[in-house]
Amino acid sequence: MPREYYTDLRNFLEALDQRGKLYRWSRPVDKDSELMPLMRLQYRGRADEARQAFLFENVTDAKAGRYDMKVLTGMYGSSRSIIGLGMGCEDPQGIYEKWRHAVTHPIAPVVVERGKVQEEVHTGAELEKIGLTMLPAPVEEPGFSGAIRVTGPFITKDAETGMRNVGMYSGHFYGPDRFLAGIARIHDAMLYHFPVARRRSEALPVAVCLGALPDIAYVAAANIPYGLDELSVAGAIRNRPVELVRCKTIPLEVPAEAEIVIEGELSTETTAREKAFSDYPGYLMAEHASKQVVKVKAITCRRGAIFPAILVGLPPSESNGISRTCREMMLDNYLKYGCGIPEVLEVSCPEMGGGWNWWVIRMKKSHPSKPQQVLHAAASMGATNKVIIVVDEDIDPKDPEMVMWAMSFAMQPHRDVQITTGRSPLLDPSAHALMTKPEDRSFPPPIGCSGMLIDATRKGPYPPVGLPKKHFMERAMEIWRQERMPELKLRTPWYGYPLGMWTAEDDAQAEAVTKGDYFGTSVKKNDEGKH
Amino acid sequence: MPREYYTDLRNFLEALDQRGKLYRWSRPVDKDSELMPLMRLQYRGRADEARQAFLFENVTDAKAGRYDMKVLTGMYGSSRSIIGLGMGCEDPQGIYEKWRHAVTHPIAPVVVERGKVQEEVHTGAELEKIGLTMLPAPVEEPGFSGAIRVTGPFITKDAETGMRNVGMYSGHFYGPDRFLAGIARIHDAMLYHFPVARRRSEALPVAVCLGALPDIAYVAAANIPYGLDELSVAGAIRNRPVELVRCKTIPLEVPAEAEIVIEGELSTETTAREKAFSDYPGYLMAEHASKQVVKVKAITCRRGAIFPAILVGLPPSESNGISRTCREMMLDNYLKYGCGIPEVLEVSCPEMGGGWNWWVIRMKKSHPSKPQQVLHAAASMGATNKVIIVVDEDIDPKDPEMVMWAMSFAMQPHRDVQITTGRSPLLDPSAHALMTKPEDRSFPPPIGCSGMLIDATRKGPYPPVGLPKKHFMERAMEIWRQERMPELKLRTPWYGYPLGMWTAEDDAQAEAVTKGDYFGTSVKKNDEGKH
Repeated sequence: MPREYYTDLRNFLEALDQRGKLYRWSRPVDKDSELMPLMRLQYRGRADEARQAFLFENVTDAKAGRYDMKVLTGMYGSSRSIIGLGMGCEDPQGIYEKWRHAVTHPIAPVVVERGKVQEEVHTGAELEKIGLTMLPAPVEEPGFSGAIRVTGPFITKDAETGMRNVGMYSGHFYGPDRFLAGIARIHDAMLYHFPVARRRSEALPVAVCLGALPDIAYVAAANIPYGLDELSVAGAIRNRPVELVRCKTIPLEVPAEAEIVIEGELSTETTAREKAFSDYPGYLMAEHASKQVVKVKAITCRRGAIFPAILVGLPPSESNGISRTCREMMLDNYLKYGCGIPEVLEVSCPEMGGGWNWWVIRMKKSHPSKPQQVLHAAASMGATNKVIIVVDEDIDPKDPEMVMWAMSFAMQPHRDVQITTGRSPLLDPSAHALMTKPEDRSFPPPIGCSGMLIDATRKGPYPPVGLPKKHFMERAMEIWRQERMPELKLRTPWYGYPLGMWTAEDDAQAEAVTKGDYFGTSVKKNDEGKH
Repeated sequence: MPREYYTDLRNFLEALDQRGKLYRWSRPVDKDSELMPLMRLQYRGRADEARQAFLFENVTDAKAGRYDMKVLTGMYGSSRSIIGLGMGCEDPQGIYEKWRHAVTHPIAPVVVERGKVQEEVHTGAELEKIGLTMLPAPVEEPGFSGAIRVTGPFITKDAETGMRNVGMYSGHFYGPDRFLAGIARIHDAMLYHFPVARRRSEALPVAVCLGALPDIAYVAAANIPYGLDELSVAGAIRNRPVELVRCKTIPLEVPAEAEIVIEGELSTETTAREKAFSDYPGYLMAEHASKQVVKVKAITCRRGAIFPAILVGLPPSESNGISRTCREMMLDNYLKYGCGIPEVLEVSCPEMGGGWNWWVIRMKKSHPSKPQQVLHAAASMGATNKVIIVVDEDIDPKDPEMVMWAMSFAMQPHRDVQITTGRSPLLDPSAHALMTKPEDRSFPPPIGCSGMLIDATRKGPYPPVGLPKKHFMERAMEIWRQERMPELKLRTPWYGYPLGMWTAEDDAQAEAVTKGDYFGTSVKKNDEGKH
């Protein structure tokens, strides 16, 4: 029996705590200058497997204010094992099949009358005076961030069809009761819902959900095809319908278990210049683009609410961890089941490429043309990917050293590399650093951005991988343990295996040598020749 | 005052031991099935900084034989710090300047009358009966290696000009008094010395030096320009002339401090098919090419000699560690002083690319054309390099994750990638796996092999790196230590900095936010506009 999914964020935190994945900071920590730098130390100084979620229980700010709310960060995506737990999988490798099951077996949400997230309701004059500043949103990159923000699932609807969208965006604080919507023009909310509201001369209702269960974060970040309700995929992940409550001031429904919801109306007219914020490529976006203004209508929350702060920026970071994993789940499912290529075994969309710009695909090559099919198929999942590399089944796509090895000794650039154009950069600054006109930034003239497709699989038979046969390595492991040597962290491959160029005679000779027959057949006269 | 260089290998071992870089195995270890697999566990399971040289004090073999000689491995190149010590530098970063000084200030060797390496001299009938089998050469990849070998500096001379060459090659045991010379046709000994001997219908005298001081290994592996005596560069590294003794049976001189020397005559007529051995690309070379036969004339050694075994094969391995470092020292010096490009700050020729196939160059960009100059210059150091990547000065070229980040967000393939042809593959199997004719393997038709030159520097001004300013990170470090959190291993960069796109106004706004002024100038009317 699989374990029950969590009941709410606090229940999920207990699960992290039991596995050593939560650290509680009881000392006072200043959210404006100390909090995110402490989390940053983890991202820049600890390996993925050692990272923890941080719960700051005593939050202060630059003006010596104290907050009732605690701040939680790293809970959705600071490591592979934390995301695995967030998906309800003890083994992080289990998330891919779970994801596939969820997108093919959605469970529609249900509306309930009462939800914890509405235990407190803040509206009216309180919003103008305090409003968003009741939330202990930390300064993410002190010294560079131009303001503070919330990042989480935004819910919007098509005013005419009622079709819902849930997307992971940021809301940049712009005043106690106003924020700017950090939604790109190619994102579903702006692409499909905004024009309808604008045509009707209405504002677009938007609900920002903070501290719902992790499944809501993943479906929001995953670029699920428009039309498939993200909340029904979340329902499949938690194996029960997501329970929704109706918002107090806008015609939307939100997850009842969330810690905090901001209800607002996105103006289809008024914009303002955004402040500098870090984004997924790892640079401050200091271009001060114009963004739509959202008027806050209500803030609802649980009693003793926990404020979840997702660090967005230089990878590794929580947003890049989520993006990596969502991209991997989507790409894995797309290649295997959408494109029908069972040869695909594993994908990697590493954080350092922002989840979008560096993909490695491990495959079992059944025909020389298959790597090309995989490369072109992968490039077609979205318009924004960049470097895509296909490797053989024995290469760990998540180990950059082994990918470097495959590129070094199984790839010939003139034969195995293709450069493609017509790509969109999203926020990749390599596309537009030299450009001036903002309108050219989403598709730089004359050919858009470019990608690179690399077939780094071995072409034809190869000699064996140069390592001892498995049973010799296993024997060495026995001796290593007997000698009480420090524990090893073995990388794949750790023993040799043939790859097509290896004969029975080679094998017999190799066997003889380990028995002390060093010269074997080598003095046979027919081996010798003249130079 | 710099420390004195070591007096001999045993003195160097003391230095390794004092720094925790030597492990002594006192238990009996079978060199034919156990010894190298134990060392392999280190290469596949331990990070570079944790690796040690292994001294096997009780060596047995498959036939229950015991050896007087101990086996030492990992002493020349199993980690960056060990190579640093081998170069006489406590700080491994010091090797580049030391190398530059050595190649520009060579100190000629001197011939002395007596040397420890001739304390024992084995010749005559003993060679036919025991010969090479007195050396405890381990099976390197048990189950795949087709024989055993020695790897070390080979000394040869031009019979007419007397010009010496020292190159790092292998000698594959072929009988008690014969071995095959693992020297490629493009290597100096075969390219320059062999044809002279052949024209004179003479054998080519060759001395294999095992267990000399580490400097001899590095000059042998470094591809020093033909004509500059490698031993005089070694003299500059040790800051005194290398002392040489005359060989007992051939007209060559060898380092007096070596543990073992094999004196031989390379036949310019007789060849034999080589057995399967692993090589630098990490595959077994199982093509059984023909190699020249060398007749052993004498084996000389110190009393209680230590046999040094260099593991050659899948990176990381000792031979790849040496090759990486030698390539880095040569490329660094070549770009900065040969080509006169002071913008070059650091190079990386990682082991996983075998030292040849993946180079990353960190540079300070003084002009947009400079990365192209660097790429073309680097490609011209040798005919066998492959992927070359130039990155900005703030990218650690030795951190594959940061190089991936640079490729992801500072490079546009259609603009920044060039594919070159006319390259030679050396032993890169990607070039000839599909081919059949051996004569086509060194330069596959119609255009040779190919390379890829990648400018992954930022083009034009960029927004700041998305991390907190330095003093906020330093403050976080203080808190981290006060809290007694586990120690960090911080990667570069760990704080943010501007890159051209950052104004005084941005800076003032960022400063204000850390003081709690979250809305700052954002409600100024002129910020707002209409969509």
